[in-house]
Amino acid sequence: MTESDRDLELAAACAEHGFDLGAPLQIGGSYTPLTRDGRTLYLSGQIPRIESHVAVAGVVGAEVSLDRGKRAAAICMLRALTLLRHELGSLTRLQGVLRLNVYVHCTADFTQHSEVADGASDLLWRVLGNAGAHTRTTVGVLQLPKNAAVELDLIAVAVAEAES
Amino acid sequence: MTESDRDLELAAACAEHGFDLGAPLQIGGSYTPLTRDGRTLYLSGQIPRIESHVAVAGVVGAEVSLDRGKRAAAICMLRALTLLRHELGSLTRLQGVLRLNVYVHCTADFTQHSEVADGASDLLWRVLGNAGAHTRTTVGVLQLPKNAAVELDLIAVAVAEAES
Amino acid sequence: MTESDRDLELAAACAEHGFDLGAPLQIGGSYTPLTRDGRTLYLSGQIPRIESHVAVAGVVGAEVSLDRGKRAAAICMLRALTLLRHELGSLTRLQGVLRLNVYVHCTADFTQHSEVADGASDLLWRVLGNAGAHTRTTVGVLQLPKNAAVELDLIAVAVAEAES
Repeated sequence: MTESDRDLELAAACAEHGFDLGAPLQIGGSYTPLTRDGRTLYLSGQIPRIESHVAVAGVVGAEVSLDRGKRAAAICMLRALTLLRHELGSLTRLQGVLRLNVYVHCTADFTQHSEVADGASDLLWRVLGNAGAHTRTTVGVLQLPKNAAVELDLIAVAVAEAES
Repeated sequence: MTESDRDLELAAACAEHGFDLGAPLQIGGSYTPLTRDGRTLYLSGQIPRIESHVAVAGVVGAEVSLDRGKRAAAICMLRALTLLRHELGSLTRLQGVLRLNVYVHCTADFTQHSEVADGASDLLWRVLGNAGAHTRTTVGVLQLPKNAAVELDLIAVAVAEAES
Repeated sequence: MTESDRDLELAAACAEHGFDLGAPLQIGGSYTPLTRDGRTLYLSGQIPRIESHVAVAGVVGAEVSLDRGKRAAAICMLRALTLLRHELGSLTRLQGVLRLNVYVHCTADFTQHSEVADGASDLLWRVLGNAGAHTRTTVGVLQLPKNAAVELDLIAVAVAEAES
């Protein structure tokens, strides 16, 4: 299978963030990273883990700056796209992302959740180009697993078989 | 296209809340308000914004009363229904809402999240009548984008083409 | 209709948790417990209510221990599975759970959300066996309706009619 432009862009973004695209993605707890029903793909919540290490932990608006919060969101999205690429063989087979949920671990007076989430959304546009359009819901939460700064999940849809 | 009873009821509810049905819905961040996969429609998180102004900001249980929290939820739902109407041409083409998520920005001891969310749910029943049945999940969160008091998103389903 | 092994396992788990499988499931607010679109089933947020009583209320990491938090998650899942069984007639007709969302009402420094959520996930594996695989997103929130310790919702899929 040949690598598409999307796969190459994902690899470039992974390299920029120090994320090893080939390393196994550690998952905690009694669940699976991805389920599929027909063309619809559900991904488990991703925290900004690089191998076994949470790369961005803590509270956005306190010890975690807006910029590092955006970087956390980007790493979560790299994990999500890596899972999708693994499932589909190539991101060329991804039609798009229907829904993105972003949870920001923040202070009580932090209100730039959308800016943090843009770290994930912008990466989606970069890798998928015109197919990057997605709906998004972003909220600010008290805590996240492993004290992660950001968590996200998504629902994606694969291209119809005849098109792939 | 003729306006259905649902469209007229939506217009009436918008007028009551001072919401201009024809004004453009401002969206912040790198995402889109709605995605569609076949008959399934995903809507982005809606905050109680009327034009460029967040109409109900702050913490429910503190500076925002239960009644104003309910009003915030209703305004979010007006935005959601307006987006659905725009996508479908008329709410007559909406089969129903499968899932509604409501996030209430509240104090640590506020527990009437369901009552706040009823502000959105009751509006859905008012506009859709018997088709207003939906599942709902409501949680209390530390913060929301732009200090909004409430945020909601939903997954809806359009009627099958042959029926519309 | 004969009871399947799954239905029997659900009944056994209900008995262990003091949950009466036959009692009506109380729902608060203006919504419905379940919606269905084709084979896809959406369930409303479940709190650890046994009849009219919230069995595990309060803050995980403070007055609610990790073990009681796991028990709360298990009770929520018993409610979810009971609703699915009621809808489908038997859990034999359940193909699986695509997505599980778990909200943990916790302290600001509690980080074992995944362990709490395992209380729900483990029950799913117990009842569904190999069909227990699901994606999961777990977050820590400030409050939940009725001061519940845990809330969860899920999206499930029924087996295709020809297979059931």
